[in-house]
Amino acid sequence: MEKIKNSPKVLIIHGPNLNMLGKREPDIYGKTTLGDINNELEGLGQKLGLEIDTFQSNHEGGIVEKIQEAVTTHNALIINPAAYTHTSIAIRDALLLLDMPVIEVHLSNIYKREPFRHKSMIADIATARICGFGTHGYTMALEALVGMIRKEVK
Amino acid sequence: MEKIKNSPKVLIIHGPNLNMLGKREPDIYGKTTLGDINNELEGLGQKLGLEIDTFQSNHEGGIVEKIQEAVTTHNALIINPAAYTHTSIAIRDALLLLDMPVIEVHLSNIYKREPFRHKSMIADIATARICGFGTHGYTMALEALVGMIRKEVK
Amino acid sequence: MEKIKNSPKVLIIHGPNLNMLGKREPDIYGKTTLGDINNELEGLGQKLGLEIDTFQSNHEGGIVEKIQEAVTTHNALIINPAAYTHTSIAIRDALLLLDMPVIEVHLSNIYKREPFRHKSMIADIATARICGFGTHGYTMALEALVGMIRKEVK
Amino acid sequence: MEKIKNSPKVLIIHGPNLNMLGKREPDIYGKTTLGDINNELEGLGQKLGLEIDTFQSNHEGGIVEKIQEAVTTHNALIINPAAYTHTSIAIRDALLLLDMPVIEVHLSNIYKREPFRHKSMIADIATARICGFGTHGYTMALEALVGMIRKEVK
Amino acid sequence: MEKIKNSPKVLIIHGPNLNMLGKREPDIYGKTTLGDINNELEGLGQKLGLEIDTFQSNHEGGIVEKIQEAVTTHNALIINPAAYTHTSIAIRDALLLLDMPVIEVHLSNIYKREPFRHKSMIADIATARICGFGTHGYTMALEALVGMIRKEVK
Amino acid sequence: MEKIKNSPKVLIIHGPNLNMLGKREPDIYGKTTLGDINNELEGLGQKLGLEIDTFQSNHEGGIVEKIQEAVTTHNALIINPAAYTHTSIAIRDALLLLDMPVIEVHLSNIYKREPFRHKSMIADIATARICGFGTHGYTMALEALVGMIRKEVK
Amino acid sequence: MEKIKNSPKVLIIHGPNLNMLGKREPDIYGKTTLGDINNELEGLGQKLGLEIDTFQSNHEGGIVEKIQEAVTTHNALIINPAAYTHTSIAIRDALLLLDMPVIEVHLSNIYKREPFRHKSMIADIATARICGFGTHGYTMALEALVGMIRKEVK
Amino acid sequence: MEKIKNSPKVLIIHGPNLNMLGKREPDIYGKTTLGDINNELEGLGQKLGLEIDTFQSNHEGGIVEKIQEAVTTHNALIINPAAYTHTSIAIRDALLLLDMPVIEVHLSNIYKREPFRHKSMIADIATARICGFGTHGYTMALEALVGMIRKEVK
Amino acid sequence: MEKIKNSPKVLIIHGPNLNMLGKREPDIYGKTTLGDINNELEGLGQKLGLEIDTFQSNHEGGIVEKIQEAVTTHNALIINPAAYTHTSIAIRDALLLLDMPVIEVHLSNIYKREPFRHKSMIADIATARICGFGTHGYTMALEALVGMIRKEVK
Amino acid sequence: MEKIKNSPKVLIIHGPNLNMLGKREPDIYGKTTLGDINNELEGLGQKLGLEIDTFQSNHEGGIVEKIQEAVTTHNALIINPAAYTHTSIAIRDALLLLDMPVIEVHLSNIYKREPFRHKSMIADIATARICGFGTHGYTMALEALVGMIRKEVK
Amino acid sequence: MEKIKNSPKVLIIHGPNLNMLGKREPDIYGKTTLGDINNELEGLGQKLGLEIDTFQSNHEGGIVEKIQEAVTTHNALIINPAAYTHTSIAIRDALLLLDMPVIEVHLSNIYKREPFRHKSMIADIATARICGFGTHGYTMALEALVGMIRKEVK
Amino acid sequence: MEKIKNSPKVLIIHGPNLNMLGKREPDIYGKTTLGDINNELEGLGQKLGLEIDTFQSNHEGGIVEKIQEAVTTHNALIINPAAYTHTSIAIRDALLLLDMPVIEVHLSNIYKREPFRHKSMIADIATARICGFGTHGYTMALEALVGMIRKEVK
Repeated sequence: MEKIKNSPKVLIIHGPNLNMLGKREPDIYGKTTLGDINNELEGLGQKLGLEIDTFQSNHEGGIVEKIQEAVTTHNALIINPAAYTHTSIAIRDALLLLDMPVIEVHLSNIYKREPFRHKSMIADIATARICGFGTHGYTMALEALVGMIRKEVK
Repeated sequence: MEKIKNSPKVLIIHGPNLNMLGKREPDIYGKTTLGDINNELEGLGQKLGLEIDTFQSNHEGGIVEKIQEAVTTHNALIINPAAYTHTSIAIRDALLLLDMPVIEVHLSNIYKREPFRHKSMIADIATARICGFGTHGYTMALEALVGMIRKEVK
Repeated sequence: MEKIKNSPKVLIIHGPNLNMLGKREPDIYGKTTLGDINNELEGLGQKLGLEIDTFQSNHEGGIVEKIQEAVTTHNALIINPAAYTHTSIAIRDALLLLDMPVIEVHLSNIYKREPFRHKSMIADIATARICGFGTHGYTMALEALVGMIRKEVK
Repeated sequence: MEKIKNSPKVLIIHGPNLNMLGKREPDIYGKTTLGDINNELEGLGQKLGLEIDTFQSNHEGGIVEKIQEAVTTHNALIINPAAYTHTSIAIRDALLLLDMPVIEVHLSNIYKREPFRHKSMIADIATARICGFGTHGYTMALEALVGMIRKEVK
Repeated sequence: MEKIKNSPKVLIIHGPNLNMLGKREPDIYGKTTLGDINNELEGLGQKLGLEIDTFQSNHEGGIVEKIQEAVTTHNALIINPAAYTHTSIAIRDALLLLDMPVIEVHLSNIYKREPFRHKSMIADIATARICGFGTHGYTMALEALVGMIRKEVK
Repeated sequence: MEKIKNSPKVLIIHGPNLNMLGKREPDIYGKTTLGDINNELEGLGQKLGLEIDTFQSNHEGGIVEKIQEAVTTHNALIINPAAYTHTSIAIRDALLLLDMPVIEVHLSNIYKREPFRHKSMIADIATARICGFGTHGYTMALEALVGMIRKEVK
Repeated sequence: MEKIKNSPKVLIIHGPNLNMLGKREPDIYGKTTLGDINNELEGLGQKLGLEIDTFQSNHEGGIVEKIQEAVTTHNALIINPAAYTHTSIAIRDALLLLDMPVIEVHLSNIYKREPFRHKSMIADIATARICGFGTHGYTMALEALVGMIRKEVK
Repeated sequence: MEKIKNSPKVLIIHGPNLNMLGKREPDIYGKTTLGDINNELEGLGQKLGLEIDTFQSNHEGGIVEKIQEAVTTHNALIINPAAYTHTSIAIRDALLLLDMPVIEVHLSNIYKREPFRHKSMIADIATARICGFGTHGYTMALEALVGMIRKEVK
Repeated sequence: MEKIKNSPKVLIIHGPNLNMLGKREPDIYGKTTLGDINNELEGLGQKLGLEIDTFQSNHEGGIVEKIQEAVTTHNALIINPAAYTHTSIAIRDALLLLDMPVIEVHLSNIYKREPFRHKSMIADIATARICGFGTHGYTMALEALVGMIRKEVK
Repeated sequence: MEKIKNSPKVLIIHGPNLNMLGKREPDIYGKTTLGDINNELEGLGQKLGLEIDTFQSNHEGGIVEKIQEAVTTHNALIINPAAYTHTSIAIRDALLLLDMPVIEVHLSNIYKREPFRHKSMIADIATARICGFGTHGYTMALEALVGMIRKEVK
Repeated sequence: MEKIKNSPKVLIIHGPNLNMLGKREPDIYGKTTLGDINNELEGLGQKLGLEIDTFQSNHEGGIVEKIQEAVTTHNALIINPAAYTHTSIAIRDALLLLDMPVIEVHLSNIYKREPFRHKSMIADIATARICGFGTHGYTMALEALVGMIRKEVK
Repeated sequence: MEKIKNSPKVLIIHGPNLNMLGKREPDIYGKTTLGDINNELEGLGQKLGLEIDTFQSNHEGGIVEKIQEAVTTHNALIINPAAYTHTSIAIRDALLLLDMPVIEVHLSNIYKREPFRHKSMIADIATARICGFGTHGYTMALEALVGMIRKEVK
């Protein structure tokens, strides 16, 4: 692959409704917005020597196309497909085009919720999975990617 | 909530393919178009002291985003998610953001149709449901909302 | 059919345990009794030019027989079969004898309750369905019937 | 509740076909009739300071109505719904009206019988369950109720 | 058993809605009423040396009780439980009390109809089954019973 | 159809293993062989003015081909597909070619046996069904066909 | 069997996590420990003329082996297999070795809990079942055993 | 229909991720891009006297809208809905608006892949289906359409 | 493999009841017989430089044996297993012996028919599938084979 | 039974496609043909004092008929029904006619293969089962039969 | 592997409750104890040039640990996991550590017993399976292992 | 809770077969043993100001008891229940006793493995889940616990 590994690029995709984080009922869900999270991840990326791109979409097709782009532009992917986790074969198919580490992140413990949220269309093709750590899950994924990308490059 | 309840605002969302109403086989389905329906609903809204906004989209993501907007701009929602009724967790998640009456409307009696149309991803989070009354179902929903909004405001 | 359409007759059937409405835990369920509801419906019927008969039974067979009678005596049916909604093929078979509009009404949103309440043995043979509007659902059904009966007669 | 707790009243309901106990094939099922059982329970009630009422019906609607009556007249219920155990949502709904201990009793061990007898529509709303002790199960239930009623009253 | 076998007695039970036979849409279902059928069966019984009793009920409990009576009064049973075929464990339990030939009859071919009509709660405890021969099915059952009763008596 | 209706021809097909009837454990299953049954049916046919052909095969394909022949040579079919009842779509497809009354017969009450015998691949395309009457079921089917053929011819 | 019936011996087995009873959150679950329960049961045993042994284990294999011992040393068994109720075929197999009354006891009403607790691997081989009476269930079982053992001995 | 049949117009729709054909791992999937395929189909169309339009989208809503357009602009449709085959009721509903031949094409043999790819939401409303022939499947579909359109026009 | 590739041989197998094509209800199904189809295919084969053998059987075992022969005598197979598509593991096992292109053809769109016709025991081991094109499907398969055989031979 | 037990006769039946053993891809499956296996079994039979008959058929009906013959001619059966294991009720019914040891043999470990091969229609009526030992499984079965036949004869 | 193949070592594991063999109801199950079986297997091992170790445990964990030991100490395994066959993933995981022949043995024909005994958690990872031959099954397995070990060693 | 929060104690439990890590096929699974992992975790604990205890058991009951101990001795739990993840209700019940953060860790991505590994009996009661990061998953869990414990204490 012709991507420069010296400063590896990581794409972070947030699925539908995650743009509403922190915008509603701050007493319950906290005041952290998606912007805050992305800022924190970009800062952490800098420390870890990773270039970070973030993307949010409520459109299945938009997420599919962003993943397609990553084929030639990024070295790793963190994805929280939110509601599309459970239904989207199109996102699964886009992920199958990638030849890089992919980490699936969920903010809440999806196993405490409705049964239809227990099924994931991408769990078996992701490299690894984190769920239930809140927004901290993204940080954990990013830190874990450092080692994974290093292994891929060798 | 800081929305002015004096002239409550109701959003009416029409899901995929409903833009084709009245445009095909008028002998069978009648000549009433979506425009006609919306006009009628706006007229009725005026009589009931409600401000009406209507919206149609064939895009799951588009509907999700319109619902997100309603969080801060409307007091009640009427939604006919059409095909997305049976598959969209993303629309369900958007509806979970709302703190207002939500009425699910279906033109036809979906229980007379294919089994996959009997399942609704939003029935248990809607306030109430109407199906099988044709376009009259929207009128019924709007009239019923008057009382519901009044109760919410008190 | 030899029934006089000038003043159409509507039968309203309430299923098992609905006789207990308003008789228990008024703080929670309100104080409206089935008698109150029936009075209101009769009043509304008068305004709409409809003759109203109401009937409640806790017996599956009793409801079956009332529906059989309606074949020759009424022009439309509103039915809330309550618990029998989910199990009674006998009531379904009786409804299959009718050649008139039939509206299925449920006070609560049955999709918020136990899974066995999501299945209806009559939904696919009813003309239309209303649920989750509380006792107001009956009023909505009655108003909607006016237009339906008119169409049937022409 | 305005019922007099000094001499608490217990209703015992026997479901369909239990009126035939002891009337058929005495060599196999024994000669104890439902009358004998009821006499024994009334005697035991007297010893325990409980007023006992017994009721048998082969009609689902009849059982529903007896339970409805108990709302205002009794302090505890013992019920063997027999065949209706497995199918009656109407009886379940009637039991949901009660605010008192309810004990479900089965003479035989229903788990040794056909699979459709393993499902109970009321097990999750009863207070407790006894099965497989023959007619002795009623006695056990009555004795256990003494403590339960005492706790309710305090 | 102390029943006189010289002139054996056959009970014929018709389930819910069968009282409406011939009373509705005669062009389609014919004009034969349940009364006509019973008359014909009584006539045939006389020829075959059988005493015939007929019974129709829309009440599950009513059918249960008629079967209980038959324990001591009849030598064979023909039953068309109609809608209760598919749901009634109470009728099954009543039939389990009988020690005589029981023939299950259905007018229509229930396998051409909705899937829930394919399941019978009594098929495995009936002696034999006839379906799809219209009202002629009763005649066939009665003629077949002659041989069966003879075998039982020997 | 060019078949002569004056002496209608009935084909009787016996499925796999029915050739062993009466040849094994006569104490239990009786001594009646398939030959005996066929003789009796031919005799009865003569009395009823029907020409009878009988056929037995253990081969699914053989039964398929016999049914194909019947398209142009017979006026009615009695079939006991035995084990193939539950699995053969090929026999179903052959029966779909026929435009005549088809009666499905089973000697035993298949509902008293293993669950896989409760499913029939042909029940919904047969005209009518008889089971549990032993070999007498064939006689009943033949007698019932007389009336059916007469109706078809008119 | 060569066990002396004069003073019959009853084994009471408590399954996994029951050793924690009363040790945690006494406000909610009460302060009664397993030791207290066992003491009470031993006292009651003395009154009833029964010798009582109690046993608790968190190990499936340990429970299996205790049951095996009981084959030659006890006359009746009371067992609350707790979590192993729903999964252990090994305990079922051990119970199948016993030729004595076995009573299955559950403290809570397991039908109010998760669906996987509704299935029991031993319900159909136990003699009888009690659930939902709290620790009083053990007392009821012990009292009921007196009559059962007497019948066995005769 | 007012579309000119002399030079019939065929629309070819490619679903999500098909825009990536030939762009990734050419050693494995070949170097044929979607552009190459479309060029070939347009060339073939010219030979067959058909006007060809091609369309690709990763958006369910985009495909829905393109199909809606075809109602008035095209005479036949070839569609490879890729991942949306298995989940999209919205595309199904759009196809139900068409009154023309519709051919469903899949490049790979979807039955060699994951079970969720075996289910198609449109197979029963398409005219015909081709799968497993690679990109040649489009050519086959186009050639077959010539005859089908001719039949429609007559 | 020692088969001469210069003039490749293609075997075409027609399953049960396909011998009846065109022989029944010509108004509906057309007058094209299986002989006509085979003639057309042989003619087309000649044009394409392929030697064609055709075979029809109503016997599962007969089809199995014909496929076994093809192992050493043919270069490609077209098969329409008709009813055996859905049930025959024996035909699947025979096809697993082949090392050549296998095309599964169905005349009708099997997805418009009964659910049991949607399952194919051979779809995942066939190279490709065509359904719903009527008899034209065979022609399409034969033309497609030319390219496939060429690739195999190289 | 009148069969001479002195030199007991064992029938060995090989199901569909087993005639192809050793004829295809010898590098993979070995060169042992069915003929070789049968010769070895006949030799072993001689040593064990058993008369061996072997039979292979690709026809379900052929296997059924061979089993029917065995009723009167053999003392034990070894059967490898291959593909028919999983689907044939007709073979099951034929086996039910036998009153002798029946051993089911499979060459491969069928549990390592497709799920539909895990179900056997005869496992519960066979005496015993061997799978995964390759052709050695037949030898094991034959040796085991010696002891079984001896026990039967006594 | 550094284990000495000259005198290969075979481990034989008996699962829960097999220690009770022959200790209960000798009239029915015979008097052969597990000790007798082990002695016989050790004797046979000597004849076959195999060193035999036997092990029984009622503890899932104990069996897991014994299998772990075998990784470095034995050359083949015979295992009858009894009740744990159907539920233990832990034993499956331990077996996955082994690189040697593993034979699963069951004394009874588990397919004649309850449905939950038809499922094996290890069948697909065992080399081969024997069931229904009683204690003779162990002998068959041991004899078959001789050839398997020889093949492994080469 | 009376545990000293100043130096919080974390228990790490490894389930069945994890004691074999690094001991088998080092080329494939690496040479890291469970001891190595525990050492690393203890070192990390020291840096993070956490006291670490580690425990491995192949016994379900052993794990249950260790969790019971933790109720009074630890402040957080990391658990990899391995095979017991999918089957143990006893471990679930023990975890329900805890009032502290619980993190479920799996080394491999269990969604890439057999379907029975996709179900977890504890996922819905754990605080959070990590899977597919290999042994690094434990480190991630420990680091994440620091923040969680801090929040609990406040």
